[in-house]
Amino acid sequence: MRDNLDLSLYLVTDQKLSRGRTHEYIVEQAVRGGVTIVQLREKDVSSRVFYELAKSLMGLLRPLNIPLIINDRLDIALAVEADGLHIGQSDLPYAVARRLMGKDKIIGLSVENLAQAREANELDVDYIGLSPVFSTRTKQDINKPLELSGVKEIIGITKHKTVAIGGMNSLNIESVMKTGVDGIAVVSAIVSQENPQEAAFRLASLIHHEK
Amino acid sequence: MRDNLDLSLYLVTDQKLSRGRTHEYIVEQAVRGGVTIVQLREKDVSSRVFYELAKSLMGLLRPLNIPLIINDRLDIALAVEADGLHIGQSDLPYAVARRLMGKDKIIGLSVENLAQAREANELDVDYIGLSPVFSTRTKQDINKPLELSGVKEIIGITKHKTVAIGGMNSLNIESVMKTGVDGIAVVSAIVSQENPQEAAFRLASLIHHEK
Repeated sequence: MRDNLDLSLYLVTDQKLSRGRTHEYIVEQAVRGGVTIVQLREKDVSSRVFYELAKSLMGLLRPLNIPLIINDRLDIALAVEADGLHIGQSDLPYAVARRLMGKDKIIGLSVENLAQAREANELDVDYIGLSPVFSTRTKQDINKPLELSGVKEIIGITKHKTVAIGGMNSLNIESVMKTGVDGIAVVSAIVSQENPQEAAFRLASLIHHEK
Repeated sequence: MRDNLDLSLYLVTDQKLSRGRTHEYIVEQAVRGGVTIVQLREKDVSSRVFYELAKSLMGLLRPLNIPLIINDRLDIALAVEADGLHIGQSDLPYAVARRLMGKDKIIGLSVENLAQAREANELDVDYIGLSPVFSTRTKQDINKPLELSGVKEIIGITKHKTVAIGGMNSLNIESVMKTGVDGIAVVSAIVSQENPQEAAFRLASLIHHEK
């Protein structure tokens, strides 16, 4: 799984932005439209609800061979045997996460600046998430957006695969792809759209055009 | 560890109720006073902070041979090789928790009524927590307090060791011990006290007097 990781169009879920539609609905539509990897991110639900959601998405994605990545909660990732874990700078340390997840699982790490990207070069993470590229209302980031210049700087020094996240949509996605990132992660550009499948298809087309 | 589990005086941490004092200070004082087991419960901190706290408390408690139980977060329990995990009815299912924790670790389960206590008889949990015994401001419980009558009913049917939690203090602890529970779990009756060691000592004396 770790060798042929396709980060092209990376969907991060957000229940609050999904306009009352279930994760299962959004994810199924998004994958039909061209999403290549899915991250389940939940902050305000019980462990039981998180577990049930993750199990349900695993049932949906495994047959389609689309990896499911769990945000932060390594216990949920282990419980459902998810394909991987995504950690941020205030989650479990990478070394601990790798020890518990095992060497065959995907682990992604968010980096918010050049210094963190350099540190990540010392780790055998499967990808880094560059976050946030632009300012966004999805996540209350206290970090300054990287902007295109910051993304380019990180691409220049990182040894890892990269996915860019934060404020991307069909209008700015081409400029971000031109920096050399391996993929684009989106939340509202898919989950909040009237037709998530169509939205994913349009984004995927733009991404593949730039690859 | 699972065979000689001493639940007599079970401390559950709460940073908000600790009057600005660190977990390390409270726990060290409490253990000196007679606490036999400690649960780290954190709801509003990052995984990194939870992990660092748990690691710090393990360093303190392991040499004293006092078990550290992690509330809810199985990943944190695994990360620091804690002695056990405490789960509630909205946390990971017991079977999943046992599979991931392994058979040698302590797992406790909260039960809020007689029906849940009967269900727990089907599981090889190490203890059940009867919660809440009385109403309390520590936890915003939506559940009706068991009161002494409810505790007695559960003691009458459970096959497990028991610890009672919720609204207990030096004034009502004797009446709860007389129901036959194996231990008393407290939060504010230790962590909010001017002198946590003295508070623990007084509670431990009352408990051992009734044993």
